[in-house]
Amino acid sequence: MIGAGNVAFHLAQTIKNAGMEVVQVYSRTEESASRLGNLLECAYTTDKTGISKDGDLYILSLTDKAIVDFSNELDLPGKIVVHTSGGLNMNVLEGMTRQYGVIYPVQTFSKVKEVDFKKVPLCIEAVNESVKKVLFDFAGKLSPDLYLLSTLQRRKLHIAAVFACNFVNHMYFIASEILKEENLPFDLLRPLIHETANKVNKLSPSVAQTGPAVRNDLQIIEKHLDLLSLSPGFQEIYRDLTESIKNLKETDNLNLS
Amino acid sequence: MIGAGNVAFHLAQTIKNAGMEVVQVYSRTEESASRLGNLLECAYTTDKTGISKDGDLYILSLTDKAIVDFSNELDLPGKIVVHTSGGLNMNVLEGMTRQYGVIYPVQTFSKVKEVDFKKVPLCIEAVNESVKKVLFDFAGKLSPDLYLLSTLQRRKLHIAAVFACNFVNHMYFIASEILKEENLPFDLLRPLIHETANKVNKLSPSVAQTGPAVRNDLQIIEKHLDLLSLSPGFQEIYRDLTESIKNLKETDNLNLS
Repeated sequence: MIGAGNVAFHLAQTIKNAGMEVVQVYSRTEESASRLGNLLECAYTTDKTGISKDGDLYILSLTDKAIVDFSNELDLPGKIVVHTSGGLNMNVLEGMTRQYGVIYPVQTFSKVKEVDFKKVPLCIEAVNESVKKVLFDFAGKLSPDLYLLSTLQRRKLHIAAVFACNFVNHMYFIASEILKEENLPFDLLRPLIHETANKVNKLSPSVAQTGPAVRNDLQIIEKHLDLLSLSPGFQEIYRDLTESIKNLKETDNLNLS
Repeated sequence: MIGAGNVAFHLAQTIKNAGMEVVQVYSRTEESASRLGNLLECAYTTDKTGISKDGDLYILSLTDKAIVDFSNELDLPGKIVVHTSGGLNMNVLEGMTRQYGVIYPVQTFSKVKEVDFKKVPLCIEAVNESVKKVLFDFAGKLSPDLYLLSTLQRRKLHIAAVFACNFVNHMYFIASEILKEENLPFDLLRPLIHETANKVNKLSPSVAQTGPAVRNDLQIIEKHLDLLSLSPGFQEIYRDLTESIKNLKETDNLNLS
C-alpha cells in the first residue's frame, strides 16, 4: 500500500479484513506510515528504495501529483500496479510496469469515520485482459459493486462526485455558519439533510427540486440576498446557484411547486 | 387549510392522521382544492368568500406573496391564524386577526414522496402567550421536535435550509447531468450521497470536507474545469465553489487530507 491518506487508510484495512495480507505500507512521513503500519500489524517504510518487491499488487493511493512523481521514480517490472485516482489517466503508470490499472472507489473517506466498503462502488480500468481479471477478482473481495469504466467515464464520474459530495458538504458548511450567527443548533437541519439525500433515491433530482429558485419566488430571493449581505462570499454563491436553478426551470419542464 | 401546495398537502394529512379535523381546504384552483379535499374527505372551496368561519385554527400555507395578498383580503377576527413560511414576518397577518403566529416546518416536501412528520422540526412564533400555548399544543400533536424562534432566527434558518436542501439537490442534479453525458447510472453516486449526508451527523461540515479544493489539488481542479468547458454554467459553479472552499481552508484550520 503506497500511501497512508484517507483512501489508503480505509482501503488497506478493508483488504486485511477481507483476509488478504498487506505486506507493507509506504508513506512519506514516519507518523502516517507507522500509524497505518501498526494498525495493520505490517511493515512500513518512508523510503522509496525500501519498498518491498514481494507484493502481488501495488496500490498507489496518493494525490494525483504524488502518483505521477512516484511513477517516474520507481520501477516495478512484472508487478501489477494500480492507482486509486478518479482523475488520472491509467497510463501514468506505464513507466513502472506493463501490468497496470485503476481501482477508483466512489466514496468520501475521512480517517475518523468508518465506511462500509461493501457499499462502495469500485470502478476498474486495466491495461489488458489478464490485469483486468486480477483486478476484478481482487476488488470483488472488497465490494460486490464493480464497474468497468473508461478513463473518460471515470474522470467525468469524479467531477460528478465533486458536486455530489464535496460541494454538497460545502453547502452544509455554509448552512452551519448561517445558523451559528443566530445561535441555532445544526440539529434543526438534520432531518432536512437526511430527507434531501433520501429523496433522490426515489425521485430524479430535477423532480425533487424545491425552494424559492425553482418557484421563481423573487420576493424571498431578494430577502435572502439582503440578509446575506454581510457574507459576500455566501451571497454570491446564493445568487449563482439560484440563477442556475432558474435557468434550468426555464429550459426544462420541472416540478414547479 | 388555506393552500394545497406541497407543505399544505403533507401538513393537512398529518393533522388528520393525528386525530384532528380539517374542516375545509381552500385553493385557488379547483384541481388542487378537490384533490386535497377528497383525500381528506372534507369540504373544499376555491372562493375566498366561501372560507368557513368554523375553524379553530387557520393555516396559510401559500407562497409568501400569496400569504401577503390573502391577509389583505380576508378578515378572521377572533380566530387564530398562522402561516408556514420560513421567510415572512409574523405580523403580515395582523390585518386578519389579533391572534396570529407562525408554524414553519423545516423540511422539503413533494407531493409524490411521503414524509414522516414526527421527524420534522416545527419552528413556532406567536404574537402572545395564549396563542403560543395553542400553537405548541397543536404542533406537539404533529411532531415532538418544537422550537420557539424569533423572526430573524427563522429567516436565517430558512436561508440555511436553502443551502442544505435546495442547493444540495441542485448539486445532485448537476452530477446526474454530468453522468448522463457518459451514459453512467446515477446509482454510482448513491452510496456517496448517502455517506456525505450521514457524515455530518458525526463530524462538523468543516472537518468532513474532502476533495480537490480543500486539498488545493490544482492539477485536478484544472482538469475538471477543462472537462466542464462545454457546460459553462456548471464550470462557473465549479470554479466559484472551489474558490469558496479554498478560501475557508486558508482562514480556518480544516482537515486537509
